[in-house]
Amino acid sequence: MAEKELGCVHEHRVYYYETDQMGCVYHANYVRWFEEARIAQMDSWCYPYAKMESAGIGSPVIKIELEYKSMALFNEICEVRCFIEEYTGTRINYAYEVTDKATGNVRCTGKSYHCFRNAEGKIVSLKREMPELDRIVRETADFKEIERRKKEKA
Amino acid sequence: MAEKELGCVHEHRVYYYETDQMGCVYHANYVRWFEEARIAQMDSWCYPYAKMESAGIGSPVIKIELEYKSMALFNEICEVRCFIEEYTGTRINYAYEVTDKATGNVRCTGKSYHCFRNAEGKIVSLKREMPELDRIVRETADFKEIERRKKEKA
Amino acid sequence: MAEKELGCVHEHRVYYYETDQMGCVYHANYVRWFEEARIAQMDSWCYPYAKMESAGIGSPVIKIELEYKSMALFNEICEVRCFIEEYTGTRINYAYEVTDKATGNVRCTGKSYHCFRNAEGKIVSLKREMPELDRIVRETADFKEIERRKKEKA
Amino acid sequence: MAEKELGCVHEHRVYYYETDQMGCVYHANYVRWFEEARIAQMDSWCYPYAKMESAGIGSPVIKIELEYKSMALFNEICEVRCFIEEYTGTRINYAYEVTDKATGNVRCTGKSYHCFRNAEGKIVSLKREMPELDRIVRETADFKEIERRKKEKA
Repeated sequence: MAEKELGCVHEHRVYYYETDQMGCVYHANYVRWFEEARIAQMDSWCYPYAKMESAGIGSPVIKIELEYKSMALFNEICEVRCFIEEYTGTRINYAYEVTDKATGNVRCTGKSYHCFRNAEGKIVSLKREMPELDRIVRETADFKEIERRKKEKA
Repeated sequence: MAEKELGCVHEHRVYYYETDQMGCVYHANYVRWFEEARIAQMDSWCYPYAKMESAGIGSPVIKIELEYKSMALFNEICEVRCFIEEYTGTRINYAYEVTDKATGNVRCTGKSYHCFRNAEGKIVSLKREMPELDRIVRETADFKEIERRKKEKA
Repeated sequence: MAEKELGCVHEHRVYYYETDQMGCVYHANYVRWFEEARIAQMDSWCYPYAKMESAGIGSPVIKIELEYKSMALFNEICEVRCFIEEYTGTRINYAYEVTDKATGNVRCTGKSYHCFRNAEGKIVSLKREMPELDRIVRETADFKEIERRKKEKA
Repeated sequence: MAEKELGCVHEHRVYYYETDQMGCVYHANYVRWFEEARIAQMDSWCYPYAKMESAGIGSPVIKIELEYKSMALFNEICEVRCFIEEYTGTRINYAYEVTDKATGNVRCTGKSYHCFRNAEGKIVSLKREMPELDRIVRETADFKEIERRKKEKA
């Protein structure tokens, strides 16, 4: 089973306003694309982020990591792959890969780490607060497969 | 009385993240600088925007106009002049001028038009809701002087 | 002939990073959506902006106007309509309308005014420099129809 | 010798356009503040980034890490501390700490990793290309002190 099949693919076209005078995408912008990819993934579950937020649960970012591999250029169509790397019921970690659609060249990889928080700002368990969404996440993330790949790399 | 003396001068340094691949500031960014200048002006009244908002009154933008005169470059220190062009108690209009501090070259001019809104989203009169701030605005904006200059131009 | 049929429709989904603490899209962001719509229009001509730029011609913004009608919200799909309002061979003006796709409510309208510039920064005539693109623009913009509508409004 | 004395302190005020509908600074914006702090540090050397770039050397980001500790709010004055964590002549790594100036509360910490690149896009040695700047960096970064602190923590 290929890594790509596990995740969600979001297309992002590079606009002029994302470039800087070096002639490529300014490095902070990829963090926004990661958000887009997470949103796309929740859409694919028919459980949009907006629905979760309306129900009083937010998912703030507690850590972000990015590694820049090559420069994404204006007008390029990028593919942002996003998959769940870890999910504990109270924490969720995503991994990302941004590639140029035309060539497959990797532009950037990254990770984001999130907790869950209720409207009062208290850290909560998604498992307890939203059992339906918890079940979807567990089904999406094929954790046996993830484990298998981790062992392969080790 | 010089036009400059009437208003508030806010310094904005151009960062890399504001440039685009044309090698100058991306045109949408000036709208943000206008916000900075309005905030600086309210600071100068010892009545920060945050204080107004905490008291339940927001001042959403209902119209914006920008004219681009020359290109602001990375690392340039710009001066953003902001002055009140009209104030009716329920509406406030600002005029802006962005210049390169070193040369005085005009980068951009613009206007923004605002109403006042309470926490329920209803349009309100600042005069009625915040008489203290209303008084400050009227004292700041030397409307006789503004009228005089308008006539001069006509 | 409906106004909508004359132009190009670009869909823009509202992301979290576009909202501000007022709970709606920050007003400067619409300027970026206008860029997206112009880019989409040039795509529809099979003459992408990137191609024009590679050929040494840029199209900098010289004036922008925006009027805010209602608040676009997170997760909303907006339609950005863009059509050419005026084209002289050396100048091009676009008009925009941003609506909520679900309800048709107008969020924002606007205009942008552009000139053409070569790689040396000199103002040039598109008609002379790029006759092929000039022809496409003239065919796209049904100026007789635009005139007719202007008269209707008058 | 306090950690704070080793680095450079840059003040950043939180504007409305940096907040999102969660009511705090959107997490990607801190990456921009890191740029501001690096720029401030090079200023303090009387060797601005713009000067380096004019001489044909850029310093692209190859890796970024951020950890979010608490929420920075609109109107808050933040202090962005930036110090050099490692410098090899061909690579430079910065560490950052963002705190609320009023309370000292940590908002975010982070790191950025950079290489040096000439105008042709080739990775170069700063030591070889710009010996004067190389010397300043080495003098600024009190590496003995950094070593000492690392041992203390271990």
